[in-house]
Amino acid sequence: MDNKLKKYQAKMDHSYTLGAFPTIELLKNRPQYVQKVMFHPDMNSEEQKEIITKLCEENHILLEVNKKDTEKIRDKDNCYCIGVFSKFQDELDGTKNHVILVNPSDMGNLGTIIRTCIGFGIKDIAIVEPAADYFNPKVVRASMGALFQMRISKFSSFDEYRANYESLKDESTLSKRAFYPFMLKGATTLQSLEIRKGQSYGLIFGNESSGLPDDFARVGQSVFIKHENTIDSLNLSMAVGIALYEFSK
Amino acid sequence: MDNKLKKYQAKMDHSYTLGAFPTIELLKNRPQYVQKVMFHPDMNSEEQKEIITKLCEENHILLEVNKKDTEKIRDKDNCYCIGVFSKFQDELDGTKNHVILVNPSDMGNLGTIIRTCIGFGIKDIAIVEPAADYFNPKVVRASMGALFQMRISKFSSFDEYRANYESLKDESTLSKRAFYPFMLKGATTLQSLEIRKGQSYGLIFGNESSGLPDDFARVGQSVFIKHENTIDSLNLSMAVGIALYEFSK
Repeated sequence: MDNKLKKYQAKMDHSYTLGAFPTIELLKNRPQYVQKVMFHPDMNSEEQKEIITKLCEENHILLEVNKKDTEKIRDKDNCYCIGVFSKFQDELDGTKNHVILVNPSDMGNLGTIIRTCIGFGIKDIAIVEPAADYFNPKVVRASMGALFQMRISKFSSFDEYRANYESLKDESTLSKRAFYPFMLKGATTLQSLEIRKGQSYGLIFGNESSGLPDDFARVGQSVFIKHENTIDSLNLSMAVGIALYEFSK
Repeated sequence: MDNKLKKYQAKMDHSYTLGAFPTIELLKNRPQYVQKVMFHPDMNSEEQKEIITKLCEENHILLEVNKKDTEKIRDKDNCYCIGVFSKFQDELDGTKNHVILVNPSDMGNLGTIIRTCIGFGIKDIAIVEPAADYFNPKVVRASMGALFQMRISKFSSFDEYRANYESLKDESTLSKRAFYPFMLKGATTLQSLEIRKGQSYGLIFGNESSGLPDDFARVGQSVFIKHENTIDSLNLSMAVGIALYEFSK
């Protein structure tokens, strides 16, 4: 590890959890990637201190009081705890349901989507680049640490993802993943969609501004979440949340 | 109008739209409240300039180029158009479905909720104070201008709202509004709820952190959006969006 810690940049091979809550989620779910944890001398929540100290001890993780680096790295004055962790790359579980985000650009949306996925039982997300950096501390915070419960993997194109994960590895189910691209021009509405039970699926969502390119309509059963035409479209994280609610029913 | 415009503060009796998009929504939906519109000299979208100029002319609204005030009021350097409007207070439509937000505190959430309500055909929102200031330019921006399509009214307590809007004014329907408080301790899940058709409803949501007080369970049919216990709760705007999706089906 580089001993001189700097403010976060996308090119680094490590990132930070800013605050006690995401740091606890990091320690609980990904202890093997934690380089160290730092408290600011003003850290005063005894309960959180105790939990974090216990988790660090159990996992033989360095815990230090470090005023200078904490103040350098944090983005808000009321952040008194920072976790330093190595970025990781997961394999997705090829037998499970997936959410595929094509070119997501907003870090707040990305964090909210990750948290909502976990809430509806989706633990595998594919990110097609170019995309917002999901290790940015802002994403970690918006996810409320749910990022560390997620298997997440990035791909240079949808085709790269598809080549790896369209065939289902679980022999007991149908052999191919059912893809549902969500598009304003979707061929059916979510409200009237008949969801095939028992077949693993991939829900595909495009960029916040531009949506999915038209040719995604050929990838699977395209879906549109019907809404009044008084707004252009639903917010991306809202669309993902509503889709997950319906698919998990 | 005060001729010396200042950066937005909640105590002012006017507010601002920051950017061309929300300014156009303001001019389209609430021209009677617009005091004036200002362009920055660097405003360079000819299409937006033309639309705004036309709307100002049609409604006899002052349109000026004002570098100094635009730069003083805006929060981002790439904002080249500002609308100045008087705050307004609406009566809700007592015959329609309502969303009631009790003590919402996050301005971004509030804007997203307003936009999503409009998307699912809800045009009446009651805000129970204390609450985030819905005229703050951040809320206007997060709503993408949908605020100006909404009837919105604030109340000092839920009881004050209820005294005015529980009785339905439309004689052809049932005489009382059906209330659905959304609570982690809700008596039924949204997934299994039988929604009574034809009766106007009020969907009630609490504060982002604390939710609704327990006694709201007695106000109506309390509802819980079932999710995995790997997260504490859904984000407030997500909960509202999912509820509206289900109720508007």
